[in-house]
Amino acid sequence: MNGRMISYTVGRILMIEAALLALPLLVAVIYGEVVDPYLSTMLMLVVVGFCMSPIKPKNTTLYARDGYAVVALTWLLMSAFGALPFVMSGDIPNFIDAYFETVSGFTTTGSSILRAVEPLSRSGLFWRSFTHWVGGMGVLVFVMAILPLTDARGMHALRAEMPGPTAGKLVSRMSDTAKILYGIYFVMTIILIALLMVGGMDWFDACVHAFGTAGTGGFSSRNASIGAYNSAYFDVVISIFMLLFGVNFNLYYFLLIGRIRETFGSEELRVYFGIVAAAVCIIAADIVHLYGSVATSVRHALFQVSTIITTTGYATADFDQWPTLSKAILVTLMFVGACAGSTGGGIKVVRIVTLFKASLCDMRRMVHPNAVISVRVEGKPLSDRAVRSVQVYLSVYVMVFTASLLLISLEGFDLVTTFTSVAACINNIGPGLAVVGPTGNFADFSVWGKLLLSFDMLVGRLEIFPMLLLFAPSIWSKPHIEWKNNV
Amino acid sequence: MNGRMISYTVGRILMIEAALLALPLLVAVIYGEVVDPYLSTMLMLVVVGFCMSPIKPKNTTLYARDGYAVVALTWLLMSAFGALPFVMSGDIPNFIDAYFETVSGFTTTGSSILRAVEPLSRSGLFWRSFTHWVGGMGVLVFVMAILPLTDARGMHALRAEMPGPTAGKLVSRMSDTAKILYGIYFVMTIILIALLMVGGMDWFDACVHAFGTAGTGGFSSRNASIGAYNSAYFDVVISIFMLLFGVNFNLYYFLLIGRIRETFGSEELRVYFGIVAAAVCIIAADIVHLYGSVATSVRHALFQVSTIITTTGYATADFDQWPTLSKAILVTLMFVGACAGSTGGGIKVVRIVTLFKASLCDMRRMVHPNAVISVRVEGKPLSDRAVRSVQVYLSVYVMVFTASLLLISLEGFDLVTTFTSVAACINNIGPGLAVVGPTGNFADFSVWGKLLLSFDMLVGRLEIFPMLLLFAPSIWSKPHIEWKNNV
Repeated sequence: MNGRMISYTVGRILMIEAALLALPLLVAVIYGEVVDPYLSTMLMLVVVGFCMSPIKPKNTTLYARDGYAVVALTWLLMSAFGALPFVMSGDIPNFIDAYFETVSGFTTTGSSILRAVEPLSRSGLFWRSFTHWVGGMGVLVFVMAILPLTDARGMHALRAEMPGPTAGKLVSRMSDTAKILYGIYFVMTIILIALLMVGGMDWFDACVHAFGTAGTGGFSSRNASIGAYNSAYFDVVISIFMLLFGVNFNLYYFLLIGRIRETFGSEELRVYFGIVAAAVCIIAADIVHLYGSVATSVRHALFQVSTIITTTGYATADFDQWPTLSKAILVTLMFVGACAGSTGGGIKVVRIVTLFKASLCDMRRMVHPNAVISVRVEGKPLSDRAVRSVQVYLSVYVMVFTASLLLISLEGFDLVTTFTSVAACINNIGPGLAVVGPTGNFADFSVWGKLLLSFDMLVGRLEIFPMLLLFAPSIWSKPHIEWKNNV
Repeated sequence: MNGRMISYTVGRILMIEAALLALPLLVAVIYGEVVDPYLSTMLMLVVVGFCMSPIKPKNTTLYARDGYAVVALTWLLMSAFGALPFVMSGDIPNFIDAYFETVSGFTTTGSSILRAVEPLSRSGLFWRSFTHWVGGMGVLVFVMAILPLTDARGMHALRAEMPGPTAGKLVSRMSDTAKILYGIYFVMTIILIALLMVGGMDWFDACVHAFGTAGTGGFSSRNASIGAYNSAYFDVVISIFMLLFGVNFNLYYFLLIGRIRETFGSEELRVYFGIVAAAVCIIAADIVHLYGSVATSVRHALFQVSTIITTTGYATADFDQWPTLSKAILVTLMFVGACAGSTGGGIKVVRIVTLFKASLCDMRRMVHPNAVISVRVEGKPLSDRAVRSVQVYLSVYVMVFTASLLLISLEGFDLVTTFTSVAACINNIGPGLAVVGPTGNFADFSVWGKLLLSFDMLVGRLEIFPMLLLFAPSIWSKPHIEWKNNV
């Protein structure tokens, strides 16, 4: 462990959070709201950040485990400080509630303890949605893009934060990769803001909903979410952009530099859009009797499928009222999630593809014991080690999910609420069904329930291991080493 | 593929089923009920069995894939013929309903389409429960025990039928192993019948409930299941025996030959009883306000935990009325299941232990990339191949479960019914929650729903692969062979 370097990195990131707070501060000035909550939080962040990182340590090496620690600590602390403006402004007076809301923001979950969002201050609403945008592409990616942390070891921290089983460098320098990713992200967000303003949103609502869409978060400035506008234009624009932000950003880079075949030949991309198309068709047919017209059914089906598979969580319809088949499909999509390397959560399409192919491969091996069959994903054979890491991901995911489910069942809600509240948080979606459905919220959970669900949101966003490793000190101890013994 | 040998083996097994029908025939004679349904079915089985196996083929080799085919075909055909007496006697006039009931019997699931069981004929009730006993230890194990199928290749068929990731020979000859297993099974069943008769059951009810307990099936001769007796004695005796039949039978053999340390040192055994103890304590505390006394709560908690973890499915209380925590624990136990090599279903404790340890091992590897750490289960290091087979099992299990869930959601029941009906069938338990709860049944499912759930029961009992391989012809084709390429 390189404690000094961990402290230095986290400290620097807290100072960057202080800088990010300048945006909601500006909004507060524009709308004539109190600026103290933002100024005091910024001051605290600068002081704490400076104390943690007065001078750069001599040894700047970050080992694999240091990467996990940096990521886990960064996200825990950023959320804790990010919650302070809500508490100080009185928007969310209770700290645990504000912490839940901020974790939900940074992790791009979009679950809310607020029964109504419209009474919040403008600056509070802006900060709440801006956390989605920051968390979407990743805090450390952002740091890489702007700070000279170009040590090769920085890769460990980045890998722990990037969604999906593999984090590849697009270009030789890590910081250039981060700049490219953030550049694409920034431009796409600007285009979306423009399109929303063309449709009639004011700049504030356009920013809030663009942040929520880009980060695949789902916080809105309206109680009825996107449904408040009842506009086919907004529904379709946001559906398309949610799906686009659920695509691996590397593919956009390939598109930009003209490697068209690599973009559209991506296996994950085709499976992702295949699942979306199939789900939209089946759900539209299943709900057509509720909405009368095929067009309206398709519009609602497209929006809900996009919002769930990308784990955004915006709502235009109360899908809790839909037939069981549609609800079962949406609950399944909650787990599938978007593509690796996107801003979306969930298990990720490429992992599902890998698990499916590995299973098929092993079944073939059972029938043809002497054949040598390998698992090919994206046209390349996968090593046993890569397959195993995805299989271990599934096992640990199921275990964390089950443990959370049992603990949340202590809250005494019905089984559907219990199951979908954990599913919505661990997959970073936002709404579930029943009590936590599109028209509900997480206000009635106990303090412990909110803390556990906050943990689950971080587990989901950071892809389990950084959080789990932080809370499992036995893992850090020296392992019982022995030679691998294949029996 | 050795088609002749597959046909020969399945044909012989059908003739054995004809012999097994002599028992319900005897019951029909004793109670003066019609004997035609049994006689005609026996005749059909002998004729079909003989046509399939007129003479022993010269080549008696069974390859791995042949083993899967034998097992899958055996179970499909035995259930189809086993359903005929119900149809012919008028106990269950509809063939699909009778097929569902018979599959539920042989697979030791215990899910029923009957709204009431007491109107059935005595011989029908006896046959229904006797299928549990036959299916519990396995049809092929039975065949091994009595037929001279001692070819070393017979192991493939046995392995495909035995519950758990590993099927070991206890003694050098396969047929002797099978005889030992069936001997222990038979003696334990006799002891249970005696204990139930001591408690006041007549010989018929004692046999029915002993068959249901031994096979961890759950069919009863009473509408209210074991709850009908409202007897603490029966509750405790059956709880203990359900737990005992959920233990790996190899351990009883070790006990018999004096290898005490191996019996009680078994990791799976200790985890199994540890889970039971923890679940009973938590549920008893959770339901004590419903039953007033601690003793009654512990009795109900012990019975329900035993019935669910061993996947038996008897009921003494309507746990659908219990608090969410208790229901969530029971639903979790549905998936855990009993020990490998027992008559119970589910994922099996040893697989859970393996997945947990493999995950822990890989997390340690993340933190200490250069350490060589191996997964040890039952004191022995597990090969990567063994770990992978369990991980693939989990993946395929989750996929089959999800696909079934989506198809069953077409039935239009609520989400809890949809989820737990699939969970109850694929894990061979019997009752789920809501519509299919302890006081409900599967009568209201459509024909397609019943066929799918029958398939799921077979998938669960045969541990997925034989059924899946039978229905996936592409698997049988010659594989695309290439050299494994570790990238």
